[in-house]
Amino acid sequence: MNVLWIFAHPEGRSLNAALRDEGLAALAELGHSYQVSDLYAMKWNPVVDYDDFGHDPRERMRVAAASHEAYRSGRLPADIQAEHEKLAWADALVVQFPLWWYGMPAILKGWFDRVLVKGLGYGIKAADGTVLRYGDGQLTGKRAMVVTTVGARPASIGPRGVNGDLDDLLFPLHHGAFWYTGIAPLPPYPVFSADRLDEAGYAAAVAGLRDRLRTLPTAEPIPFRRQNGGDYDENLVLRADLAPGRSDLGVHLRD
Amino acid sequence: MNVLWIFAHPEGRSLNAALRDEGLAALAELGHSYQVSDLYAMKWNPVVDYDDFGHDPRERMRVAAASHEAYRSGRLPADIQAEHEKLAWADALVVQFPLWWYGMPAILKGWFDRVLVKGLGYGIKAADGTVLRYGDGQLTGKRAMVVTTVGARPASIGPRGVNGDLDDLLFPLHHGAFWYTGIAPLPPYPVFSADRLDEAGYAAAVAGLRDRLRTLPTAEPIPFRRQNGGDYDENLVLRADLAPGRSDLGVHLRD
Repeated sequence: MNVLWIFAHPEGRSLNAALRDEGLAALAELGHSYQVSDLYAMKWNPVVDYDDFGHDPRERMRVAAASHEAYRSGRLPADIQAEHEKLAWADALVVQFPLWWYGMPAILKGWFDRVLVKGLGYGIKAADGTVLRYGDGQLTGKRAMVVTTVGARPASIGPRGVNGDLDDLLFPLHHGAFWYTGIAPLPPYPVFSADRLDEAGYAAAVAGLRDRLRTLPTAEPIPFRRQNGGDYDENLVLRADLAPGRSDLGVHLRD
Repeated sequence: MNVLWIFAHPEGRSLNAALRDEGLAALAELGHSYQVSDLYAMKWNPVVDYDDFGHDPRERMRVAAASHEAYRSGRLPADIQAEHEKLAWADALVVQFPLWWYGMPAILKGWFDRVLVKGLGYGIKAADGTVLRYGDGQLTGKRAMVVTTVGARPASIGPRGVNGDLDDLLFPLHHGAFWYTGIAPLPPYPVFSADRLDEAGYAAAVAGLRDRLRTLPTAEPIPFRRQNGGDYDENLVLRADLAPGRSDLGVHLRD
């Protein structure tokens, strides 16, 4: 498989960097090819702006429309086009980051903001006008796995934990970015208590990561429902007979 | 009241900019003082890096420790210090952004990443060692309201909507950033179908915003539970007798 590893940590000798190096070594041993987008090393610009689109601001064009136009006409800047080429090449993404304020570091959020332009990430329609998203989209067929370091202990960021359940905290990324564009998200690989790992804890974190990379091509994705699979009504609300009476984010998982 | 309005949209003639101008006019009419952090206009740097902390990377200091040290010794860069002064001055924050990939634009996420350094945003302990967060913290006594423009129609981003419920999508910001640091989050003010607003829709959006700003000082915050309020056990998991049998994010709301 071709794997794009997107990495967002500022320190080359951090726990995150060590895990990344172990992960890349494992991919090579497994016979996969990989490319790395090391966002800090690349000095990735995370800020969407009209500069990206060669757009005259006097036109009052919306961001989405400007990005669509630049994408269609091949006028996106080289740094975005380079990520598009990596995306086209990749069968799988590994997206690795420390959990900051219960989400992605800004430099990584801005990878999604800038790379997933209209026409590639959203605004896709079938010939019959059906909107293609949430399980259908330009990136269908790819898979993605989050690797994240978390300061909290597992219980406090699990079900009923004070920090909120990690699965819910990652819903905007898993469902709102990966699944939205057609990418099948795999269960994440979190490293808990990341500020307090001893040697044994680090060894266990590496072993767990290697295990998860072994099953990268075969693991069952998180079973989100497809928008066009018949589970949602004409207002895009889940049918009343599915997960009846519930309104937690888990209703978007198939039974 | 003193209000800090944090604004994250690239286009000065956008719907967002128009709403911001209406909102600021309303604040002035109501007799409030305000400051604006217009992140695009300020060319805000959203990327946390060791440069911020005057830190020698050979020390292998963790990001959190480096930020704490720089904060305590007054060596943070001027742009972060300026935001700290505004924060200290403010009784309330309005945080306005277009919802991109179901979260904040990167430039705004990076406001939280860079401004809420250790010692101000987290890592706060009482004299007896109690960790002060989720309802207790350096920013206790302030309130905050999100104003966000959303492409989706209300039903599709409400309970059981295909996009996920907006309250859950905003949980990392409301609970994981505001409430974590002690700030009381007010119910958000979303403007739905933002790509398709006609004149009447725009007028309604403005009127609604003005209403919500009128009650900015008095509105009941989202009733999140306090970490130190007795509702969580020693593992920081919600007591079994509270919201029994549930594990949705709503369990973190008081009854």
